[in-house]
Amino acid sequence: MNRDRLYLYDTTLRDGQQTQGVQFSTTEKIQIAGMLDGLGIDYIEGGWPGANPTDSEFFERRPRTRATMTAFGMTKRAGRSAANDEVLSAVLNAGTPSVCLVGKTHEFHVTTALGITLEENLENIAQSVAHLVAQGREAIFDAEHFFDGWAANRDYALACLQAALDAGARWIVLCDTNGGTLAPEIGRIVGEVIGAGIPGERLGIHTHNDAEQAVAGALAAVDAGARQIQGTLNGLGERCGNANLTSLIPTLLLKEPYRSRFEIGVDAAALQGLTRMSRRLDEILNRLPQRTAAYVGSSAFAHKAGLHASAILKDPSTYEHVDPALVGNARIIPMSNQAGQSNLRARLADAGIEVAAGDPALARILERVKAREDQGYSYDTAQASFELIAREELGLMPRFFEVLRYRVTLERRRDRHDRMKTLSEAVVVVQIGEQKMLSVSESLDESGSDRGPVNALSKALAKDLGPYQDLIDDLRLVDFKVRITQGGTEAVTRVIIDSQDGQGRRWATVGVSPNIVDASFEALLDAVNWKLLRDGAQPA
Amino acid sequence: MNRDRLYLYDTTLRDGQQTQGVQFSTTEKIQIAGMLDGLGIDYIEGGWPGANPTDSEFFERRPRTRATMTAFGMTKRAGRSAANDEVLSAVLNAGTPSVCLVGKTHEFHVTTALGITLEENLENIAQSVAHLVAQGREAIFDAEHFFDGWAANRDYALACLQAALDAGARWIVLCDTNGGTLAPEIGRIVGEVIGAGIPGERLGIHTHNDAEQAVAGALAAVDAGARQIQGTLNGLGERCGNANLTSLIPTLLLKEPYRSRFEIGVDAAALQGLTRMSRRLDEILNRLPQRTAAYVGSSAFAHKAGLHASAILKDPSTYEHVDPALVGNARIIPMSNQAGQSNLRARLADAGIEVAAGDPALARILERVKAREDQGYSYDTAQASFELIAREELGLMPRFFEVLRYRVTLERRRDRHDRMKTLSEAVVVVQIGEQKMLSVSESLDESGSDRGPVNALSKALAKDLGPYQDLIDDLRLVDFKVRITQGGTEAVTRVIIDSQDGQGRRWATVGVSPNIVDASFEALLDAVNWKLLRDGAQPA
Repeated sequence: MNRDRLYLYDTTLRDGQQTQGVQFSTTEKIQIAGMLDGLGIDYIEGGWPGANPTDSEFFERRPRTRATMTAFGMTKRAGRSAANDEVLSAVLNAGTPSVCLVGKTHEFHVTTALGITLEENLENIAQSVAHLVAQGREAIFDAEHFFDGWAANRDYALACLQAALDAGARWIVLCDTNGGTLAPEIGRIVGEVIGAGIPGERLGIHTHNDAEQAVAGALAAVDAGARQIQGTLNGLGERCGNANLTSLIPTLLLKEPYRSRFEIGVDAAALQGLTRMSRRLDEILNRLPQRTAAYVGSSAFAHKAGLHASAILKDPSTYEHVDPALVGNARIIPMSNQAGQSNLRARLADAGIEVAAGDPALARILERVKAREDQGYSYDTAQASFELIAREELGLMPRFFEVLRYRVTLERRRDRHDRMKTLSEAVVVVQIGEQKMLSVSESLDESGSDRGPVNALSKALAKDLGPYQDLIDDLRLVDFKVRITQGGTEAVTRVIIDSQDGQGRRWATVGVSPNIVDASFEALLDAVNWKLLRDGAQPA
Repeated sequence: MNRDRLYLYDTTLRDGQQTQGVQFSTTEKIQIAGMLDGLGIDYIEGGWPGANPTDSEFFERRPRTRATMTAFGMTKRAGRSAANDEVLSAVLNAGTPSVCLVGKTHEFHVTTALGITLEENLENIAQSVAHLVAQGREAIFDAEHFFDGWAANRDYALACLQAALDAGARWIVLCDTNGGTLAPEIGRIVGEVIGAGIPGERLGIHTHNDAEQAVAGALAAVDAGARQIQGTLNGLGERCGNANLTSLIPTLLLKEPYRSRFEIGVDAAALQGLTRMSRRLDEILNRLPQRTAAYVGSSAFAHKAGLHASAILKDPSTYEHVDPALVGNARIIPMSNQAGQSNLRARLADAGIEVAAGDPALARILERVKAREDQGYSYDTAQASFELIAREELGLMPRFFEVLRYRVTLERRRDRHDRMKTLSEAVVVVQIGEQKMLSVSESLDESGSDRGPVNALSKALAKDLGPYQDLIDDLRLVDFKVRITQGGTEAVTRVIIDSQDGQGRRWATVGVSPNIVDASFEALLDAVNWKLLRDGAQPA
């Protein structure tokens, strides 16, 4: 069967920059462009040259990509020619092979937001696109507010598309700018546009997630005949975000009817890097990855219900819509008080520990987990801590080192410049084999700012772990959650730490104590032990 | 036009509990059930009685609700009668007016996961449902893996539905258990099921978000004729979550064709409480609200792009798909603080501070709040800390005392019984008027257990506040939440403390620092200052 080519257009670097709290540096933009190019995206929209210094600098320093680098801008303003519009000139001066210009197609916006006549707006579209084509560029027209415009005055909205098409635009992109159009309506309108004479192979779709329909809307447009999808990695974007390419790409490659009907630039090998890429983007942006994200979230293949877990043991397809390995993700069978022995065996099998059904150690592990959960521990997230407990019960946990004692001092007072300053200092005494090591560390970072007692402790602990030092050098604390909970009769503090290493592995550990520093230190020790275990460290 | 009744079935307390990291207490379940009832949900699925102690206790202590309280369970097992199945009996013993039983409809699951014959499974469904009906209960049948089952063997899948229907089930709920079915396919299959003789007014839809299609899939089923939607608040649920009722409800109430075609139990007044309810659920679960959530996210109406913001000033409908006030959310326009100032005045009035419109202090307060929020502070919850900041800018904040310095020491080592013990000790030096007070305290409670550094600090601070001592004797720390968050370029710790006093007043304060003890102490100081202010203390 002959498959249609479907094009992916990424706007992470432009619309994704409108995400609240996101502000890319030029270097970050270059990094992300490299990731997108490696993934197999067709078009990379790099930003708006001339609109801000970062975007201008990005185009000056832009990497050489296989993907078509695209500059974004808007159609020329009324009352001047395209060649004399300095905003448009700045966009063209970036020298990209492709240029995308946004323009109005909704009469209300033409008259209210721009304050010009409908005819002037048509001229702006036609002349701007013609100018791009005359300069030898591939022209893309983003039809802003198209779906609302179509509802208000379909003849005018269509005339705008036709003007761009007649002027030579390669792509006409129908934008649901305000994100409120539901998927079936998007499909219906795209079908009507094609019926009115705009060829589907020239149409793109740009949706937003304001009604939680961005992905469904993009697919509905493709079903109706559009052949280009605009979106962003991890669904970044203005307000609720753009159509999430990280969800769309696996659906297009793995699910019918898309798998059989379309060819895209992303192949199966690149798809296996998708989870890592998604996490890496969050790392660049210093955001917490969304655990529940489709396909790539850390919970996306987590089976908490006991009945699900026991079926998964028999056949993973019983409760998984796709194989997690296809997107580079992993199955997780978390522990909880709803878990039975089958759940436990599955989780152990995932950690590479095979235990026969009915082994008495299984009951002991469950009992211990239950007892600790009564004290306030929670193993449903902290799987690494769970694994350590299980290994101890099974006699499979090497003893790498022992902490004999520690002390933390934390002081806040005025410094010599009469400013209030805090300093933490930690001493940790560790026994490794026959050796006793004393380490001291303070909590200052490179800039001289205090990072707190847990940081000081972690640095003191990591300062001299003798033979294990190399293995823990790339360990990084990436998240830290604290909750007051009931441990028996008393309120205690539960700390859950997420750690990550240079290989991109991420794991969670838990500590519980009335004392928050103690609880943190317990979780920290588990994190270190798990890492040593995974890296195959040998007990001294 | 006569509108069809569409029923909302909430499973936050059952499927929502399968969210990784979520573990409800009975009290929390009761709180959430109250929220759902106030919202106008038709059915509240409270859990699986007998499956775990929390769920059993919830049904024993369950609140009286207008919504139909529903117990969840599974169809009877093969080889025994429904009356003799003790799992099913435990479900019935909860005594709810409605009972929902999940059963298999996919032949692969019948033979692989259950290991019984297809005929036995049909009998299990029919006899279980008949048993519910004989006991006078409303019977709901959750058809597990229905869409995959339909693809594999539609005759058998249909026979399962027919068996439940013939036995008297009020609702047959088509479940996309693995979450991989795309919305158009859900719509198509629901249409075929209705065509095969199962009436749409008896059909419900249960979707999951594994392909980011749960909301679109639920709506596609309604479009095809289903009349009950199952979902959860904030889209909680196994793996990637269930269909998000927090997104679905505004769409059903505000958007066509649903607004004209359907009536639901939620009215316009309840809709205005939706944003607050969503945030409150996250607070109960100690999760960070998702900023980009449709309708209720804090970014959902944030207009970052300059072109958007200036158009919004002319007419908000230019870049908003619905009015944020309809869902109790608020517009955020970084370009203009016009809207911000009236908000601010309302909040100050709540704290008993009247400020005239246009007072230049308003702009200063907004600026300071913005600068502090950039550092990681959050004043949405910490109303008491917000009030202190505002009072400082307005010159309405007395200076009660000043902390000159403090020091905390925390040590963990073996005691004389060779047990690991932790002890914290704090010294606080405070200036009150002309007087300097040194206080020291350790962190042991009545039973001799260590309660940690923040406890030691709080005790040392409260030990001698001179003239204020009486006023703070009844101050109690009742909750403590810690989050790692972004403060400028660095991760910092945000601590939110809930305090309570003898009069039952409860207030929240916030502290931010890379150092968790520092952040806690800052929040603690705010708590003490707010209490002194409220009790009318006079500066020394």
